[in-house]
Formats: sequence, structure tokens, C-alpha cells
Amino acid sequence: MLRLLSRRILLANSSAIRTANYSKNCGRTNVAVVLSGCGVYDGSEIHEAVSVLSHLTRNDASPFVFAPRIDQMHIINHSNGDEDKSSKRNVLVESARISRGDVKPLSELVENYKNFDAVVFPGGFGVAKNLSDFAVNGPKCTVHPDVVSILENCHKSRIMLGFACIAPVLAARVLCNVTITLGKESPAEDWPHKGAIEAAKSMGAIIELKEVFEVSADRENNVFSTPAYMYNGKYHEIDDGIGNMIRLMLVTLRQS
Amino acid sequence: MLRLLSRRILLANSSAIRTANYSKNCGRTNVAVVLSGCGVYDGSEIHEAVSVLSHLTRNDASPFVFAPRIDQMHIINHSNGDEDKSSKRNVLVESARISRGDVKPLSELVENYKNFDAVVFPGGFGVAKNLSDFAVNGPKCTVHPDVVSILENCHKSRIMLGFACIAPVLAARVLCNVTITLGKESPAEDWPHKGAIEAAKSMGAIIELKEVFEVSADRENNVFSTPAYMYNGKYHEIDDGIGNMIRLMLVTLRQS
Repeated sequence: MLRLLSRRILLANSSAIRTANYSKNCGRTNVAVVLSGCGVYDGSEIHEAVSVLSHLTRNDASPFVFAPRIDQMHIINHSNGDEDKSSKRNVLVESARISRGDVKPLSELVENYKNFDAVVFPGGFGVAKNLSDFAVNGPKCTVHPDVVSILENCHKSRIMLGFACIAPVLAARVLCNVTITLGKESPAEDWPHKGAIEAAKSMGAIIELKEVFEVSADRENNVFSTPAYMYNGKYHEIDDGIGNMIRLMLVTLRQS
Repeated sequence: MLRLLSRRILLANSSAIRTANYSKNCGRTNVAVVLSGCGVYDGSEIHEAVSVLSHLTRNDASPFVFAPRIDQMHIINHSNGDEDKSSKRNVLVESARISRGDVKPLSELVENYKNFDAVVFPGGFGVAKNLSDFAVNGPKCTVHPDVVSILENCHKSRIMLGFACIAPVLAARVLCNVTITLGKESPAEDWPHKGAIEAAKSMGAIIELKEVFEVSADRENNVFSTPAYMYNGKYHEIDDGIGNMIRLMLVTLRQS
């Protein structure tokens, strides 16, 4: 019974996808959210992505989800850390699990970035494996060309950019002299990814050491970032930090 | 670089899984969260599961995630609604994407249910496809034997039960004369799953029609439920409804 229902709802959703309208609309705040799969170790960090979406609608913004239509770098069995080589997964298709079906190809955002007031990148290893190869090549990483185009064009057009967790390395690699946070360096049990800070510095970024509930605001470059799961925190602590970033971005947008 | 890091963190997590201690601890509220995969159309609804976990830690409870180690009924491509027959996915392994690695087999909860103050079931079609066959057989559905055992034993032992979205049909099928909500019946565009209400009535449940932000509290049976994504709502509306249920459950627990 619900199987048929599920199919019907999806078809309804698909139709919504085709007609979803993010053209500039007086009074509406359009925010693009770029996902990189579904699951912290090979895609978007789920809690961060959910927090971004929830705080956007809570603050009267309209989120539109985008993801590249490419294969994931690999599949990680999240219950034991092993690589699963038995099949492949597509970044856009898996990202649709988080957006409940409504996801558009990232190439569409490349074309239409001017219709958005802000673009937000949640974290997760998908940022370092699918949106770039930072997980393999560190500071010498290559960033997906659609992401490069979006970051460069939004930066030039003063469209606001937001990054959570490891995602600020994308800004560090693509933009010049950008100020970001990747959390703190110690204690090690609270901040297990501190290597990313040195990597971002060597890419030319200026680093602010921030707590999980804090936000780095580079107002010159219109770039906002928050540590999220760079911190080994509780579920709600990550939600609070991301909420603080989204609110600050939207307040700043609406005051400008 | 991060690939190695990811591996190290997962190994650390695995060790945490092995040693995670949910034995009764004075002052700590242990809550089991039962997942059914990762993604609304073939597993746990991601936003509901994240909300449950986040509101538990926000309210000083300790969540422990469980899932059955079985194959999913099927895989749904969430971007277009098609069934993907090219591979199989395991419910426990996919659920670990939501819990960031820390998931235990549901059979362990069958053995150790007395160590928990409450058990919560988020929704998603995984409830109707993996924890039961409600999606296929409706009111005549069979419920996974571990879920039956957990519901019956918790009910007998006055261990609190919480259900979001479609999950209350599990209580309707297993427990007698239980009062639940599955949301409302109209308008149809807001409440697209109203068929579940008639099905639950025919299984013997007493139905309360509730808004997305409301909670049905069956204090005699110690069963709580909230509509969540039975409502076609915005991300934060679902988060608010689940937050209301989790808070009411924990306040009730701590007053008893």
C-alpha cells in the first residue's frame, strides 16, 4: 500500500523538482545548499546538512539543494570503516536522500548562481573526496570545476558563501586571502582533524581558531564558516553552531 | 591525508562501539533509538532521526542507536523514485550513516531492553518496509520479531515508547488498545498519508488527530507519538514536533 504511495509521492516530488522556481522573487531569500553524498565518511555529514536546511527554513529562507552528478570516490561501510568495492554510488542520487528527492545537478547552479542570495556547503568527507580531492592530495588538491566556478563567481558578485566543518578548505583553495575557521588545534580528543588547519594555511587562508558554537565572519570576502564536526561534539552542539552561522548570514544579508 | 584520518577515526569509533556502556547509571537517561536504514523512501527518514538524536542530547539523555542486521526490502533512487536492483544494502550498515558509525544490532536491544529508560522509533518508509511489511500488507502486516519482542517487553516493564511519522503503526500492530497519532486526514495536500489512519484503526488502535507540532500521550500504555513527516511540512516544523515529543517524554520520565 505505502509502496504505491511512496511512488506517487516521488512522482509528485519529481514534478515539483522540474517546476521548482528559484528565480529572484521580491522578499524571498534563495539559498543554494551544495551536498556531496549522504554519510560523513564518503559524502555529506548528515547532521550538518539537516541543520543547514532546518535553520534556513526556520529563518524564512528557501533552500534549494544541488549536487554533482558524478560517482562517489568510494563507498565506506559506516559501521566498520571498510571500503565497499561491490558497487558504485552517485553523489547526486545519494544527496537526494537528505533532500527527500528534491536535488538539482550542480551544473545548474553554475548557470544560475545569480538567482541566489547565498550558497552553503555543509561538511563531511564528501567535500574532501567528491567536491575535491583534498582527502588524497591535501593542500595541492584539485576542486571540482563546477565548485570552482560557483565560488569564483559568487565571490565576484558578492553572493554570500557559508561553509561548515571541513568545507572551508574549498574556499582556502579557490579564493585568495580568505579568512576561515576549521575549529581549534587542541585538546586533540576534542579536535581530531587539526591537520586541516596547517593545510589551509599553506593554501593561503587566514585561520581563526573558533569554538564549535562560534562563527568566523570574513566580511570583506563575504565568507562565513563554523567548525561543526571538526569538533568531537554532541549532536545538538553541532546543530547550535550551524544555527549560529545561518542566522548570522541571514541577518547580515537582510541588513545589507 | 583525510582518507587515512577517516580510517583512524572509524577505528576509534569501532572501539567506542565495542566498549559503549549503556548499563544503568544513576542520573543518566539511556534512550535506545531504532533506525531502519538511511533515507525516507527505503529507510529511516533522515531529518526525523537527526531530530530525535539532537533533542535527546540537548535534553541530557544518552542516545544509543540500534538497527536490524538484515537486507533492506529494496533500494529506492531518491532522485527519481526508481527501484535500484543493481545491488543490496544492509539496514544496520546504512543506519550507521546517520549515527556516524555507532550502531548496534537490534538483537542486542532485545537482550538488554531493561537498561533503557525509553525506546524511540523515527519514521520513514524503512519502518513499513524493513521493520515490518506494512508497505505491502497494510493492517495484516508482520512486524520484525525483534521489534515485537522489544515493544511487548518494554510495554510490560513500563519502559517508555516514542514513535514519529508512520512508526506508530508498529505500536498499533503489536500492542492492544494503544492510543497514537498519525497526524490528520485533511487537507490532502498537507496530509498525503491519511490511508495509514484507517489501517491503524483496523489494527485496533485509538487514533488522535494531531497537528505536526503536537504530541499524542497515551499515559496508560506509556506510548508517545507525533506526526512528523506524515505532514508535508518545512524542515524546521518536523524538528519542532519531534522536539516537543522528546521533551515531553523526558519530563514525564523524570517526574515519575
